[in-house]
Amino acid sequence: MTRTISLAAFAAFFMSASCHAQAIYPIDRAEILKGSKFDFKVELPEKIAASDIKVTINGADQTAAFGKSADYIEREDNKDQSALMLRDVVLDKTGAYKIDVTAGNFTKSVTWNVYDTGARRAKNVILFVGDGMSLSHRVGARILSKGIKEGKSSGKLAVDDMPSMALVGTAGTDSIITDSANSASAYTTGHKSATNALGVYADRTRDVFDDPKVETITSLVKRKLDLAVGIVTNTEIQDATPASMIAHTRRRSAYDEIVAQMFAAKPDVILGGGAANFLPRAVDIGKRADEVDYLARFKEAGYPYVKTAGELKAEADKSDTKKLLGLFTPGNMDGVLDRKLLKGGGVKKYPEQPDLTEQVQAALNVLSRNDKGFFLMVESGMIDKYAHMLDFDRAVYDVIMLDNAVKLAKEWAAKRGEDTLILVVSDHSHPNSLIGTVNDDMSTETNLPLRERIGVYDKAGFPNYPAPDADGYPSRVDVSRRLAIMSASVPDHYETLRPKLDGPNQPTEAGEAPNTFKANEKYKNAPGAMLRLGNLPAMMNASVHSGEDVILTATGPGSDRVKGQMDNTEVFRVMVDALGLGASTK
Amino acid sequence: MTRTISLAAFAAFFMSASCHAQAIYPIDRAEILKGSKFDFKVELPEKIAASDIKVTINGADQTAAFGKSADYIEREDNKDQSALMLRDVVLDKTGAYKIDVTAGNFTKSVTWNVYDTGARRAKNVILFVGDGMSLSHRVGARILSKGIKEGKSSGKLAVDDMPSMALVGTAGTDSIITDSANSASAYTTGHKSATNALGVYADRTRDVFDDPKVETITSLVKRKLDLAVGIVTNTEIQDATPASMIAHTRRRSAYDEIVAQMFAAKPDVILGGGAANFLPRAVDIGKRADEVDYLARFKEAGYPYVKTAGELKAEADKSDTKKLLGLFTPGNMDGVLDRKLLKGGGVKKYPEQPDLTEQVQAALNVLSRNDKGFFLMVESGMIDKYAHMLDFDRAVYDVIMLDNAVKLAKEWAAKRGEDTLILVVSDHSHPNSLIGTVNDDMSTETNLPLRERIGVYDKAGFPNYPAPDADGYPSRVDVSRRLAIMSASVPDHYETLRPKLDGPNQPTEAGEAPNTFKANEKYKNAPGAMLRLGNLPAMMNASVHSGEDVILTATGPGSDRVKGQMDNTEVFRVMVDALGLGASTK
Repeated sequence: MTRTISLAAFAAFFMSASCHAQAIYPIDRAEILKGSKFDFKVELPEKIAASDIKVTINGADQTAAFGKSADYIEREDNKDQSALMLRDVVLDKTGAYKIDVTAGNFTKSVTWNVYDTGARRAKNVILFVGDGMSLSHRVGARILSKGIKEGKSSGKLAVDDMPSMALVGTAGTDSIITDSANSASAYTTGHKSATNALGVYADRTRDVFDDPKVETITSLVKRKLDLAVGIVTNTEIQDATPASMIAHTRRRSAYDEIVAQMFAAKPDVILGGGAANFLPRAVDIGKRADEVDYLARFKEAGYPYVKTAGELKAEADKSDTKKLLGLFTPGNMDGVLDRKLLKGGGVKKYPEQPDLTEQVQAALNVLSRNDKGFFLMVESGMIDKYAHMLDFDRAVYDVIMLDNAVKLAKEWAAKRGEDTLILVVSDHSHPNSLIGTVNDDMSTETNLPLRERIGVYDKAGFPNYPAPDADGYPSRVDVSRRLAIMSASVPDHYETLRPKLDGPNQPTEAGEAPNTFKANEKYKNAPGAMLRLGNLPAMMNASVHSGEDVILTATGPGSDRVKGQMDNTEVFRVMVDALGLGASTK
Repeated sequence: MTRTISLAAFAAFFMSASCHAQAIYPIDRAEILKGSKFDFKVELPEKIAASDIKVTINGADQTAAFGKSADYIEREDNKDQSALMLRDVVLDKTGAYKIDVTAGNFTKSVTWNVYDTGARRAKNVILFVGDGMSLSHRVGARILSKGIKEGKSSGKLAVDDMPSMALVGTAGTDSIITDSANSASAYTTGHKSATNALGVYADRTRDVFDDPKVETITSLVKRKLDLAVGIVTNTEIQDATPASMIAHTRRRSAYDEIVAQMFAAKPDVILGGGAANFLPRAVDIGKRADEVDYLARFKEAGYPYVKTAGELKAEADKSDTKKLLGLFTPGNMDGVLDRKLLKGGGVKKYPEQPDLTEQVQAALNVLSRNDKGFFLMVESGMIDKYAHMLDFDRAVYDVIMLDNAVKLAKEWAAKRGEDTLILVVSDHSHPNSLIGTVNDDMSTETNLPLRERIGVYDKAGFPNYPAPDADGYPSRVDVSRRLAIMSASVPDHYETLRPKLDGPNQPTEAGEAPNTFKANEKYKNAPGAMLRLGNLPAMMNASVHSGEDVILTATGPGSDRVKGQMDNTEVFRVMVDALGLGASTK
């Protein structure tokens, strides 16, 4: 080897994380379920002859463990960089696997742990995800939906009353801060990945569909146990969290392709928003770039298609409905505050959207017709979007809705004799905190700066929302003393300290410079509005995700594994263990 | 009764919470440990003759339950407002107690629940309090002290690896936002109270020492079980959290009187800062308003007195040391970042301050000489003060220190055969979140606004602190890519996005108007400093507390009661249950 190559090797060592000069997938310390499928890939920093590359696993040639050798790619992406790729590897022995790659002067090693599971303990698993749900949202939901008097809550949320709890770390392979794609993917595959990636390790190639795949839990439960699979959300069904159930791409925004992947995966129940990406542009609300009508395809494949709450219930109630596609809006569905009370957002146009509880009830009805059991993911997904937009009223109402859905599932499971593992978790946090209350009547001097109305410590007192209705929703949010939930990450915006009654908050608008944002002038003349200069780069139009651990609570068979502090990949392990997926064969 | 009185009664009904026009203490829904002492008080909104006041308990006259009648006060605080007060009530029967007060036309009822405990399961209890410790601080401490690679932590905190976990609600009787006095008091007495109150319900009188008392756990364990009691902190020993172990006053700032109460209570081990309030003004560092030398009094009462880490160890190691007073600074002690690395704050003047781990080891040595067991509270108290001052480096380092102390206690307990219940909790949250990293090398253009250096999502990447030392402390915080922990509640201040190497951050200084604060000009000319206009009233000089639930983790006998969502008063119940305090007699 020449000196030039030695220097390149030196550089590769220090840059491997950021520029993928030399990588092995799955990554070091990966935890792999025995019998699950994954793609093995080696990326080398330069062109190296196949004969100069050696891959051993626990000291023996790769074929001993993999049963075959990886394919050699001489010039990946038409660059002088070689690679090895082996799709659909399955490891059937548990224990440590040390992979050593030698390629000329380059060496790299990773170690994986392959684990099995005990026998199956749960017939069904329901994974609830409050997207971006943070502790402040949960406390706000408790205060609004249960009431508080003399500091003592007048009731508990359904999620408060579950026997097991853990903190879950959310970092991705590329950053301490995750997005909803790689965080949800960690839950559904047991592998961490990078921002925007779903069901793959994000490799160095330009192609966003060729990355090394890892198997999703929905594939596993279908392949190994013939379970039914359900995906329920109130966002677009092809958005990151629901997509993580079936998708393999490093670009979460590839909505058209994700719909195609969903059709290929055939989950039994699909309920959410996002109809636009099921139809070509030429058709109705469609916005697909291709000419495929996926609504027609799903119908041909035996899926009844429903578009309203009424149709949903009617179809789910039929005893022979075992598959169901429900898409209730072209894009995201509306939050419960708009649907039930304010009629803002898209509610006027789509007034018959179901509530998340109705979606869950329908899913349970349909999925439980599979005698072998089911895996259901339910997302309350607008929490995150409202939190981004500093719209804390809407976020908190959608946490109450999530909790109602959890309550429904808990009661459903209790009637069956506890054969169902129920998990409730967030996928990442938002930098939101409850810092007190906003008191319109704090001062009679109306020309005081708006911030003087923020009551902190004893001056916060208690909010005066009206008593909640039977579903836990106060009938008004524009009361005179209301919760002050604020964000630690803000773009420039006009702070009005008031609920946005006409529709979700829009704190920013496009700025003068390309790809920048400025405070939305719409709120400039609101009473007392104060311009708050932000602490985010000007390219950010909204509050961002934060890196705190999230709360996981659980009940049912297998929930005893939920404790202490866990990595997000361990949530997958809790679920596959409860289902005995490392022990069972079809 | 006249119409005037009826209107007053009407008003009293709606105003009872805020103006104490008519109150019964303990309050409605109070949970009371069988055999614990408390003061019973009734406040009436006007002068009412004793003969017109009737108090029944479960329908019978109060004497049946209390053994005596409450004292009548005709004109409390020299106002036309009568009251009843009965000190040191003890209830020895479990169950519901409905207290009905009739006074002329006024009626008010509250219901208490008196509970007992199972048999004693723990010989010792150690309660760790991270004052103001929030999830972002904990995640930051994990990243700095354990390292993180490809999104996976390279280790767990001691507090991460404990079998039981719960969320704890922190609201006080007067507000959704608590301070450290009433929150700690809920842990040490099992009763909620109001801002600034310790070991009492805050009544309407001007006197801040006559409020109705509730018994502290330190009184209970001494009175019923002859346990040793230890108080360890790195704040002033008379500050709210340590004071909650022994104090009864509704004004936490009454430092002189709290020291007097501490002397009366005689905890066996007292280690912290705050020597100034033990000495009269005329003496040395003293600042007591009276002439009492409490150092002399403690010495006369048999307490060795130590002032440095060396003296602490020497005295604690002596086999006959069973009491110990250590006060290492006149005010608060310095945080570990200053003590170990930066030598900022008061470290130059007091270089021999012990570490919290040294304090805990000394306390364990001394307290464990009591064969009957002990109750120890350990506070890492500067976390809160640094969080207020937006000094997140120092807060995170003090969380690492707390975790080291927890590790020490866990290992100490494991060697003994698990006879010790260990709890780790915060008393309230701060509105802090980890929103990404600050990247000095993000751009080579030095004239970009400071906020453009905040890396969010994938641009956050991972910080580049040096590997931690054996105690988990990286040797530098002023690295080029560092954690960005920010607050959702800020006063006006100059943001520099840099660690404060010369001493703790001071974001504000006195403003022009009385009792207002403005951005501290000290930082105005720091490189790139940006003025951030705050969202708090101008009377606030610092970030404020937030109302999220805090995390409670536990291990050892009795920790199985820690689960789900609990009220802060239930932390007391977990501890008294483990000690069997409702079952035992002396």
